[in-house]
Amino acid sequence: MESVNAGQSRRHFQMATPVKVHGPPLSTAVSRVLACLIEKDVQLQLIPVNMSKGEHKSPDFLKIQPFGQVPAFQDESTSQFESRAICRYVCEKYAEKGNKGLYGSNPLAKASIDQWLEAEGQSFNPPSSVLVFQLAFAPRMKMKQDQSLINQNHDKLAKVLEVYEKRLGESRFLAGDEFSLADLSHLPNTHYLVNATDRGELFTSKKNVGRWWAEISSRDSWKKVVDMQKHSS
Amino acid sequence: MESVNAGQSRRHFQMATPVKVHGPPLSTAVSRVLACLIEKDVQLQLIPVNMSKGEHKSPDFLKIQPFGQVPAFQDESTSQFESRAICRYVCEKYAEKGNKGLYGSNPLAKASIDQWLEAEGQSFNPPSSVLVFQLAFAPRMKMKQDQSLINQNHDKLAKVLEVYEKRLGESRFLAGDEFSLADLSHLPNTHYLVNATDRGELFTSKKNVGRWWAEISSRDSWKKVVDMQKHSS
Repeated sequence: MESVNAGQSRRHFQMATPVKVHGPPLSTAVSRVLACLIEKDVQLQLIPVNMSKGEHKSPDFLKIQPFGQVPAFQDESTSQFESRAICRYVCEKYAEKGNKGLYGSNPLAKASIDQWLEAEGQSFNPPSSVLVFQLAFAPRMKMKQDQSLINQNHDKLAKVLEVYEKRLGESRFLAGDEFSLADLSHLPNTHYLVNATDRGELFTSKKNVGRWWAEISSRDSWKKVVDMQKHSS
Repeated sequence: MESVNAGQSRRHFQMATPVKVHGPPLSTAVSRVLACLIEKDVQLQLIPVNMSKGEHKSPDFLKIQPFGQVPAFQDESTSQFESRAICRYVCEKYAEKGNKGLYGSNPLAKASIDQWLEAEGQSFNPPSSVLVFQLAFAPRMKMKQDQSLINQNHDKLAKVLEVYEKRLGESRFLAGDEFSLADLSHLPNTHYLVNATDRGELFTSKKNVGRWWAEISSRDSWKKVVDMQKHSS
Protein backbone atom coordinates (compact mmCIF):
# COMPACT_ATOMS: atom_id res chain seq x y z
CA MET A 1 0.00 0.00 0.00
CA GLU A 2 1.22 3.41 -0.90
CA SER A 3 -0.07 6.63 0.57
CA VAL A 4 -0.01 9.85 -1.39
CA ASN A 5 -0.94 13.22 0.02
CA ALA A 6 -0.95 15.71 -2.79
CA GLY A 7 -1.60 18.62 -0.48
CA GLN A 8 0.55 17.55 2.46
CA SER A 9 2.38 20.86 2.77
CA ARG A 10 -0.80 22.87 3.09
CA ARG A 11 -2.94 20.34 4.87
CA HIS A 12 -0.76 18.47 7.35
CA PHE A 13 -3.09 19.61 10.12
CA GLN A 14 -5.85 17.51 8.59
CA MET A 15 -5.77 13.85 9.52
CA ALA A 16 -8.65 12.76 7.24
CA THR A 17 -8.87 9.08 6.42
CA PRO A 18 -7.45 8.64 2.93
CA VAL A 19 -9.78 7.38 0.24
CA LYS A 20 -8.89 3.98 -1.19
CA VAL A 21 -8.21 3.29 -4.85
CA HIS A 22 -7.98 -0.41 -5.71
CA GLY A 23 -6.01 -1.20 -8.85
CA PRO A 24 -2.65 -0.79 -10.58
CA PRO A 25 -1.67 2.77 -11.64
CA LEU A 26 -0.64 1.38 -15.03
CA SER A 27 -4.34 0.86 -15.79
CA THR A 28 -5.73 3.82 -17.75
CA ALA A 29 -8.96 3.86 -15.72
CA VAL A 30 -7.04 3.76 -12.41
CA SER A 31 -4.72 6.56 -13.51
CA ARG A 32 -7.74 8.72 -14.50
CA VAL A 33 -8.99 8.52 -10.90
CA LEU A 34 -5.51 9.14 -9.48
CA ALA A 35 -5.08 12.29 -11.59
CA CYS A 36 -8.45 13.56 -10.40
CA LEU A 37 -7.71 12.91 -6.72
CA ILE A 38 -4.33 14.63 -6.98
CA GLU A 39 -5.90 17.66 -8.75
CA LYS A 40 -8.41 17.79 -5.90
CA ASP A 41 -5.73 17.50 -3.18
CA VAL A 42 -7.43 14.44 -1.72
CA GLN A 43 -5.28 12.05 0.28
CA LEU A 44 -5.39 8.58 -1.21
CA GLN A 45 -4.25 5.09 -0.44
CA LEU A 46 -3.45 2.83 -3.36
CA ILE A 47 -4.45 -0.80 -2.82
CA PRO A 48 -2.70 -3.21 -5.20
CA VAL A 49 -4.84 -5.63 -7.20
CA ASN A 50 -2.77 -8.35 -8.83
CA MET A 51 -4.62 -8.77 -12.09
CA SER A 52 -2.25 -11.40 -13.46
CA LYS A 53 -3.26 -13.54 -10.47
CA GLY A 54 -6.95 -12.79 -11.17
CA GLU A 55 -7.49 -10.86 -7.94
CA HIS A 56 -9.99 -8.59 -9.77
CA LYS A 57 -12.26 -11.63 -10.22
CA SER A 58 -12.11 -12.74 -6.58
CA PRO A 59 -15.39 -12.79 -4.60
CA ASP A 60 -14.17 -10.05 -2.24
CA PHE A 61 -13.24 -7.75 -5.09
CA LEU A 62 -16.50 -8.44 -6.94
CA LYS A 63 -18.35 -7.13 -3.89
CA ILE A 64 -16.99 -3.64 -4.59
CA GLN A 65 -16.63 -3.91 -8.40
CA PRO A 66 -19.25 -6.36 -9.74
CA PHE A 67 -17.84 -6.30 -13.31
CA GLY A 68 -14.41 -7.44 -12.06
CA GLN A 69 -12.61 -4.41 -13.46
CA VAL A 70 -10.33 -1.76 -11.97
CA PRO A 71 -10.51 0.68 -10.31
CA ALA A 72 -12.75 0.32 -7.33
CA PHE A 73 -12.98 3.29 -4.99
CA GLN A 74 -13.89 3.49 -1.31
CA ASP A 75 -14.30 6.28 1.18
CA GLU A 76 -15.99 6.44 4.56
CA SER A 77 -19.47 6.78 3.00
CA THR A 78 -19.52 4.64 -0.13
CA SER A 79 -17.76 2.35 -2.55
CA GLN A 80 -17.87 3.16 -6.26
CA PHE A 81 -16.76 1.91 -9.63
CA GLU A 82 -16.46 3.35 -13.17
CA SER A 83 -13.59 5.83 -13.36
CA ARG A 84 -15.54 8.75 -14.82
CA ALA A 85 -18.32 8.35 -12.23
CA ILE A 86 -15.71 8.24 -9.45
CA CYS A 87 -14.16 11.45 -10.80
CA ARG A 88 -17.56 13.20 -10.83
CA TYR A 89 -18.22 12.04 -7.27
CA VAL A 90 -14.81 13.20 -6.04
CA CYS A 91 -15.33 16.64 -7.63
CA GLU A 92 -18.77 17.02 -6.05
CA LYS A 93 -17.74 15.75 -2.64
CA TYR A 94 -14.52 17.74 -2.43
CA ALA A 95 -15.90 20.81 -4.22
CA GLU A 96 -13.95 23.14 -1.91
CA LYS A 97 -10.62 21.32 -2.09
CA GLY A 98 -7.76 21.57 -4.59
CA ASN A 99 -8.64 22.59 -8.15
CA LYS A 100 -12.10 24.07 -7.57
CA GLY A 101 -12.91 24.53 -11.25
CA LEU A 102 -12.13 20.95 -12.29
CA TYR A 103 -15.83 20.12 -12.75
CA GLY A 104 -16.94 23.69 -13.47
CA SER A 105 -18.01 26.51 -11.22
CA ASN A 106 -21.45 27.14 -12.76
CA PRO A 107 -24.12 24.96 -14.43
CA LEU A 108 -23.22 25.90 -18.01
CA ALA A 109 -19.51 25.26 -17.46
CA LYS A 110 -20.42 21.91 -15.92
CA ALA A 111 -22.68 21.06 -18.85
CA SER A 112 -19.83 21.74 -21.27
CA ILE A 113 -17.48 19.56 -19.20
CA ASP A 114 -20.05 16.73 -19.09
CA GLN A 115 -20.47 16.97 -22.85
CA TRP A 116 -16.74 16.63 -23.58
CA LEU A 117 -16.30 14.03 -20.85
CA GLU A 118 -18.98 11.96 -22.62
CA ALA A 119 -17.27 12.62 -25.96
CA GLU A 120 -14.12 11.16 -24.40
CA GLY A 121 -16.00 8.13 -23.06
CA GLN A 122 -18.06 7.48 -26.19
CA SER A 123 -15.92 8.68 -29.13
CA PHE A 124 -12.29 9.02 -28.04
CA ASN A 125 -11.89 6.12 -25.63
CA PRO A 126 -13.17 3.24 -27.79
CA PRO A 127 -10.59 3.59 -30.59
CA SER A 128 -7.77 4.84 -28.38
CA SER A 129 -8.12 2.08 -25.81
CA VAL A 130 -7.99 -0.54 -28.59
CA LEU A 131 -4.81 1.07 -29.96
CA VAL A 132 -3.25 1.27 -26.50
CA PHE A 133 -3.98 -2.39 -25.88
CA GLN A 134 -2.88 -3.61 -29.31
CA LEU A 135 0.23 -1.42 -29.68
CA ALA A 136 1.50 -0.92 -26.13
CA PHE A 137 0.24 -3.84 -24.04
CA ALA A 138 -0.11 -6.80 -26.43
CA PRO A 139 3.63 -6.89 -27.29
CA ARG A 140 4.59 -6.80 -23.58
CA MET A 141 2.12 -9.62 -22.95
CA LYS A 142 3.51 -11.58 -25.94
CA MET A 143 0.08 -11.45 -27.57
CA LYS A 144 -0.41 -11.36 -31.33
CA GLN A 145 -1.49 -7.97 -32.66
CA ASP A 146 -4.61 -7.67 -34.83
CA GLN A 147 -3.53 -5.45 -37.72
CA SER A 148 -6.99 -4.96 -39.17
CA LEU A 149 -8.33 -3.87 -35.77
CA ILE A 150 -5.40 -1.49 -35.43
CA ASN A 151 -6.03 0.09 -38.86
CA GLN A 152 -9.75 0.40 -38.28
CA ASN A 153 -9.30 2.11 -34.91
CA HIS A 154 -6.46 4.31 -36.14
CA ASP A 155 -8.86 5.71 -38.75
CA LYS A 156 -11.64 6.17 -36.19
CA LEU A 157 -9.32 8.01 -33.81
CA ALA A 158 -7.98 10.20 -36.63
CA LYS A 159 -11.53 11.35 -37.41
CA VAL A 160 -12.26 12.11 -33.75
CA LEU A 161 -9.04 14.12 -33.53
CA GLU A 162 -10.06 16.22 -36.55
CA VAL A 163 -13.06 17.39 -34.49
CA TYR A 164 -10.77 18.05 -31.52
CA GLU A 165 -8.36 20.04 -33.71
CA LYS A 166 -11.18 22.36 -34.76
CA ARG A 167 -12.55 22.65 -31.22
CA LEU A 168 -9.11 23.38 -29.76
CA GLY A 169 -8.66 26.11 -32.35
CA GLU A 170 -11.65 27.91 -30.81
CA SER A 171 -11.00 27.22 -27.17
CA ARG A 172 -7.89 26.64 -25.02
CA PHE A 173 -9.26 23.48 -23.45
CA LEU A 174 -12.02 21.12 -24.58
CA ALA A 175 -14.80 22.45 -22.39
CA GLY A 176 -13.69 26.10 -22.35
CA ASP A 177 -10.91 28.36 -21.07
CA GLU A 178 -10.03 26.23 -18.06
CA PHE A 179 -8.49 22.80 -17.65
CA SER A 180 -11.26 20.43 -16.59
CA LEU A 181 -12.23 16.83 -15.95
CA ALA A 182 -12.91 16.58 -19.70
CA ASP A 183 -9.25 17.21 -20.55
CA LEU A 184 -8.01 15.14 -17.61
CA SER A 185 -9.97 12.13 -18.78
CA HIS A 186 -7.92 12.04 -22.01
CA LEU A 187 -4.56 11.87 -20.22
CA PRO A 188 -4.26 8.10 -19.61
CA ASN A 189 -4.82 6.81 -23.15
CA THR A 190 -3.04 9.71 -24.84
CA HIS A 191 -0.02 9.26 -22.58
CA TYR A 192 0.44 5.69 -23.83
CA LEU A 193 -0.31 6.56 -27.46
CA VAL A 194 2.28 9.35 -27.46
CA ASN A 195 4.95 7.66 -25.33
CA ALA A 196 4.57 3.92 -25.87
CA THR A 197 3.34 3.50 -29.46
CA ASP A 198 4.26 4.76 -32.93
CA ARG A 199 0.98 6.75 -33.17
CA GLY A 200 2.04 9.84 -31.22
CA GLU A 201 1.95 11.94 -34.41
CA LEU A 202 -1.82 11.68 -34.44
CA PHE A 203 -1.57 14.21 -31.60
CA THR A 204 1.79 15.95 -31.88
CA SER A 205 1.55 16.75 -35.60
CA LYS A 206 -1.66 18.74 -35.09
CA LYS A 207 -1.23 22.41 -34.22
CA ASN A 208 -4.02 22.74 -31.65
CA VAL A 209 -4.19 19.16 -30.38
CA GLY A 210 -0.38 19.19 -30.04
CA ARG A 211 -0.44 22.45 -28.06
CA TRP A 212 -3.25 21.12 -25.85
CA TRP A 213 -1.47 17.82 -25.22
CA ALA A 214 1.78 19.60 -24.29
CA GLU A 215 -0.14 21.74 -21.81
CA ILE A 216 -2.30 19.11 -20.11
CA SER A 217 0.42 16.47 -19.92
CA SER A 218 2.81 18.83 -18.15
CA ARG A 219 0.50 19.44 -15.21
CA ASP A 220 2.00 18.48 -11.85
CA SER A 221 -0.91 16.13 -11.12
CA TRP A 222 -0.27 14.08 -14.25
CA LYS A 223 3.50 14.04 -13.67
CA LYS A 224 2.81 12.54 -10.24
CA VAL A 225 0.64 9.84 -11.80
CA VAL A 226 3.34 8.99 -14.36
CA ASP A 227 5.77 8.75 -11.48
CA MET A 228 3.44 6.35 -9.66
CA GLN A 229 3.24 4.28 -12.86
CA LYS A 230 7.03 4.13 -13.11
CA HIS A 231 7.35 2.96 -9.53
CA SER A 232 4.70 0.27 -9.79
CA SER A 233 5.28 -3.22 -11.02
CA MET B 1 -41.66 19.91 -36.41
CA GLU B 2 -43.59 18.22 -33.66
CA SER B 3 -44.26 19.77 -30.31
CA VAL B 4 -44.77 17.64 -27.23
CA ASN B 5 -45.79 18.95 -23.87
CA ALA B 6 -45.60 16.12 -21.43
CA GLY B 7 -47.09 18.15 -18.63
CA GLN B 8 -49.63 20.14 -20.59
CA SER B 9 -52.51 19.40 -18.27
CA ARG B 10 -50.70 20.68 -15.19
CA ARG B 11 -48.64 23.40 -16.79
CA HIS B 12 -50.66 25.03 -19.54
CA PHE B 13 -50.27 28.35 -17.74
CA GLN B 14 -46.54 28.19 -18.55
CA MET B 15 -45.61 29.39 -22.02
CA ALA B 16 -41.91 28.57 -21.78
CA THR B 17 -40.02 28.27 -25.05
CA PRO B 18 -39.71 24.55 -25.77
CA VAL B 19 -36.24 23.06 -25.89
CA LYS B 20 -35.18 21.71 -29.29
CA VAL B 21 -34.09 18.16 -29.96
CA HIS B 22 -32.56 17.63 -33.39
CA GLY B 23 -32.73 14.08 -34.69
CA PRO B 24 -35.05 11.18 -35.48
CA PRO B 25 -36.82 9.49 -32.51
CA LEU B 26 -35.87 6.11 -33.99
CA SER B 27 -32.26 6.85 -33.01
CA THR B 28 -31.43 5.29 -29.65
CA ALA B 29 -29.52 8.37 -28.49
CA VAL B 30 -32.36 10.71 -29.51
CA SER B 31 -34.95 8.58 -27.74
CA ARG B 32 -32.83 8.58 -24.56
CA VAL B 33 -33.07 12.38 -24.47
CA LEU B 34 -36.80 12.34 -25.30
CA ALA B 35 -37.54 9.93 -22.45
CA CYS B 36 -35.62 12.17 -20.06
CA LEU B 37 -37.41 15.35 -21.16
CA ILE B 38 -40.80 13.68 -20.85
CA GLU B 39 -39.93 12.35 -17.36
CA LYS B 40 -38.96 15.91 -16.45
CA ASP B 41 -42.17 17.44 -17.91
CA VAL B 42 -40.13 19.71 -20.17
CA GLN B 43 -41.82 20.99 -23.31
CA LEU B 44 -39.84 19.98 -26.39
CA GLN B 45 -39.80 20.58 -30.08
CA LEU B 46 -38.50 17.81 -32.29
CA ILE B 47 -36.50 19.02 -35.29
CA PRO B 48 -36.16 16.38 -38.02
CA VAL B 49 -32.68 15.57 -39.32
CA ASN B 50 -32.80 13.54 -42.51
CA MET B 51 -29.83 11.25 -42.00
CA SER B 52 -30.33 9.35 -45.25
CA LYS B 53 -29.80 12.68 -47.02
CA GLY B 54 -26.71 13.36 -44.89
CA GLU B 55 -28.20 16.36 -43.09
CA HIS B 56 -26.26 15.39 -39.95
CA LYS B 57 -23.03 16.11 -41.84
CA SER B 58 -24.11 19.52 -43.14
CA PRO B 59 -22.06 22.59 -42.07
CA ASP B 60 -25.02 24.05 -40.15
CA PHE B 61 -25.59 20.86 -38.20
CA LEU B 62 -21.87 20.43 -37.48
CA LYS B 63 -21.96 23.82 -35.74
CA ILE B 64 -24.17 22.33 -33.02
CA GLN B 65 -22.91 18.72 -33.19
CA PRO B 66 -19.28 18.69 -34.36
CA PHE B 67 -19.12 14.88 -34.62
CA GLY B 68 -22.07 14.85 -37.06
CA GLN B 69 -24.18 12.59 -34.86
CA VAL B 70 -27.67 12.88 -33.38
CA PRO B 71 -29.08 14.22 -31.16
CA ALA B 72 -28.19 17.86 -30.80
CA PHE B 73 -30.02 19.83 -28.12
CA GLN B 74 -30.71 23.53 -27.82
CA ASP B 75 -32.36 25.72 -25.24
CA GLU B 76 -32.28 29.46 -24.66
CA SER B 77 -28.87 29.29 -22.93
CA THR B 78 -26.85 26.61 -24.69
CA SER B 79 -26.54 23.94 -27.33
CA GLN B 80 -25.34 20.50 -26.31
CA PHE B 81 -24.51 17.09 -27.69
CA GLU B 82 -23.95 13.58 -26.25
CA SER B 83 -27.24 12.09 -25.06
CA ARG B 84 -26.13 11.21 -21.53
CA ALA B 85 -24.62 14.66 -20.99
CA ILE B 86 -27.86 16.26 -22.26
CA CYS B 87 -29.85 14.13 -19.80
CA ARG B 88 -27.61 15.21 -16.91
CA TYR B 89 -27.98 18.87 -17.94
CA VAL B 90 -31.77 18.60 -18.24
CA CYS B 91 -32.01 17.01 -14.78
CA GLU B 92 -29.84 19.72 -13.21
CA LYS B 93 -31.56 22.61 -14.99
CA TYR B 94 -35.11 21.40 -14.37
CA ALA B 95 -34.39 19.98 -10.91
CA GLU B 96 -37.78 21.15 -9.65
CA LYS B 97 -39.87 19.91 -12.57
CA GLY B 98 -41.41 16.52 -13.30
CA ASN B 99 -39.68 13.48 -11.82
CA LYS B 100 -37.54 15.16 -9.15
CA GLY B 101 -35.63 12.02 -8.21
CA LEU B 102 -34.53 11.10 -11.72
CA TYR B 103 -30.92 12.16 -11.05
CA GLY B 104 -31.06 11.55 -7.30
CA SER B 105 -32.05 13.77 -4.43
CA ASN B 106 -28.82 13.59 -2.45
CA PRO B 107 -25.11 13.26 -3.33
CA LEU B 108 -24.84 9.53 -2.58
CA ALA B 109 -27.96 8.70 -4.62
CA LYS B 110 -26.53 10.77 -7.46
CA ALA B 111 -23.18 9.00 -7.21
CA SER B 112 -24.90 5.64 -7.52
CA ILE B 113 -26.88 6.87 -10.55
CA ASP B 114 -23.70 8.20 -12.19
CA GLN B 115 -21.99 4.86 -11.57
CA TRP B 116 -24.74 2.84 -13.28
CA LEU B 117 -25.17 5.43 -16.00
CA GLU B 118 -21.46 4.99 -16.78
CA ALA B 119 -21.88 1.20 -16.63
CA GLU B 120 -24.59 1.60 -19.28
CA GLY B 121 -22.36 3.82 -21.43
CA GLN B 122 -19.19 1.76 -21.04
CA SER B 123 -20.32 -1.86 -20.56
CA PHE B 124 -23.93 -2.24 -21.71
CA ASN B 125 -24.11 0.11 -24.69
CA PRO B 126 -21.12 -1.14 -26.73
CA PRO B 127 -22.36 -4.73 -27.22
CA SER B 128 -26.06 -3.84 -27.28
CA SER B 129 -25.71 -1.08 -29.86
CA VAL B 130 -23.77 -3.46 -32.13
CA LEU B 131 -26.54 -6.06 -31.77
CA VAL B 132 -29.26 -3.48 -32.42
CA PHE B 133 -27.51 -2.30 -35.54
CA GLN B 134 -26.67 -5.76 -36.86
CA LEU B 135 -29.98 -7.46 -36.02
CA ALA B 136 -32.60 -4.71 -36.25
CA PHE B 137 -31.23 -2.04 -38.60
CA ALA B 138 -28.90 -3.84 -41.05
CA PRO B 139 -31.73 -6.03 -42.48
CA ARG B 140 -33.96 -2.98 -43.01
CA MET B 141 -31.06 -1.21 -44.72
CA LYS B 142 -30.37 -4.31 -46.85
CA MET B 143 -26.89 -4.55 -45.33
CA LYS B 144 -25.06 -7.82 -44.82
CA GLN B 145 -24.92 -8.98 -41.21
CA ASP B 146 -21.58 -9.82 -39.61
CA GLN B 147 -22.22 -13.10 -37.79
CA SER B 148 -18.93 -13.20 -35.92
CA LEU B 149 -19.49 -9.66 -34.63
CA ILE B 150 -23.00 -10.67 -33.56
CA ASN B 151 -21.76 -13.72 -31.67
CA GLN B 152 -18.95 -11.84 -30.00
CA ASN B 153 -21.25 -9.05 -28.79
CA HIS B 154 -24.00 -11.45 -27.77
CA ASP B 155 -21.50 -13.09 -25.41
CA LYS B 156 -20.31 -9.74 -24.09
CA LEU B 157 -23.86 -8.58 -23.42
CA ALA B 158 -24.75 -11.88 -21.74
CA LYS B 159 -21.86 -11.37 -19.29
CA VAL B 160 -22.93 -7.81 -18.53
CA LEU B 161 -26.49 -8.99 -17.90
CA GLU B 162 -25.25 -11.58 -15.41
CA VAL B 163 -23.95 -8.69 -13.32
CA TYR B 164 -27.26 -6.87 -13.75
CA GLU B 165 -29.22 -9.97 -12.72
CA LYS B 166 -27.30 -10.10 -9.45
CA ARG B 167 -27.61 -6.35 -8.85
CA LEU B 168 -31.33 -6.36 -9.57
CA GLY B 169 -31.76 -9.19 -7.08
CA GLU B 170 -30.48 -6.83 -4.38
CA SER B 171 -32.17 -3.64 -5.48
CA ARG B 172 -35.40 -2.78 -7.33
CA PHE B 173 -33.66 -0.49 -9.83
CA LEU B 174 -30.01 -0.28 -10.88
CA ALA B 175 -29.01 2.66 -8.71
CA GLY B 176 -31.33 1.93 -5.78
CA ASP B 177 -35.00 1.84 -4.83
CA GLU B 178 -36.12 4.50 -7.31
CA PHE B 179 -36.28 4.62 -11.08
CA SER B 180 -33.45 6.88 -12.28
CA LEU B 181 -31.52 8.15 -15.27
CA ALA B 182 -29.42 4.98 -15.01
CA ASP B 183 -32.44 2.76 -15.78
CA LEU B 184 -33.83 5.21 -18.34
CA SER B 185 -30.59 5.14 -20.30
CA HIS B 186 -31.05 1.41 -20.96
CA LEU B 187 -34.52 1.81 -22.52
CA PRO B 188 -33.59 2.62 -26.15
CA ASN B 189 -31.28 -0.31 -26.90
CA THR B 190 -33.23 -2.80 -24.81
CA HIS B 191 -36.49 -1.82 -26.51
CA TYR B 192 -35.04 -2.80 -29.90
CA LEU B 193 -33.35 -5.95 -28.59
CA VAL B 194 -36.59 -7.19 -27.00
CA ASN B 195 -39.02 -6.06 -29.71
CA ALA B 196 -37.09 -6.06 -32.98
CA THR B 197 -34.53 -8.87 -32.69
CA ASP B 198 -34.45 -12.53 -31.65
CA ARG B 199 -32.34 -11.72 -28.55
CA GLY B 200 -35.13 -10.61 -26.21
CA GLU B 201 -34.62 -13.70 -24.08
CA LEU B 202 -31.34 -12.29 -22.86
CA PHE B 203 -33.57 -10.02 -20.79
CA THR B 204 -36.95 -11.70 -20.47
CA SER B 205 -35.64 -15.12 -19.40
CA LYS B 206 -33.87 -13.64 -16.38
CA LYS B 207 -35.92 -13.33 -13.22
CA ASN B 208 -34.68 -9.96 -12.00
CA VAL B 209 -33.68 -8.38 -15.30
CA GLY B 210 -37.04 -9.48 -16.75
CA ARG B 211 -38.96 -7.96 -13.84
CA TRP B 212 -36.94 -4.73 -14.14
CA TRP B 213 -37.44 -4.52 -17.90
CA ALA B 214 -41.23 -5.03 -17.56
CA GLU B 215 -41.35 -2.25 -15.00
CA ILE B 216 -39.19 0.38 -16.70
CA SER B 217 -40.57 -0.21 -20.20
CA SER B 218 -44.15 0.31 -19.03
CA ARG B 219 -43.55 3.83 -17.76
CA ASP B 220 -45.74 6.46 -19.41
CA SER B 221 -42.68 8.44 -20.50
CA TRP B 222 -41.26 5.51 -22.46
CA LYS B 223 -44.64 4.63 -23.98
CA LYS B 224 -44.82 8.19 -25.31
CA VAL B 225 -41.37 7.82 -26.88
CA VAL B 226 -42.35 4.53 -28.53
CA ASP B 227 -45.43 6.30 -29.85
CA MET B 228 -43.26 9.07 -31.29
CA GLN B 229 -41.07 6.39 -32.94
CA LYS B 230 -44.13 4.75 -34.50
CA HIS B 231 -45.34 8.05 -35.91
CA SER B 232 -41.99 9.08 -37.36
CA SER B 233 -40.72 8.02 -40.74
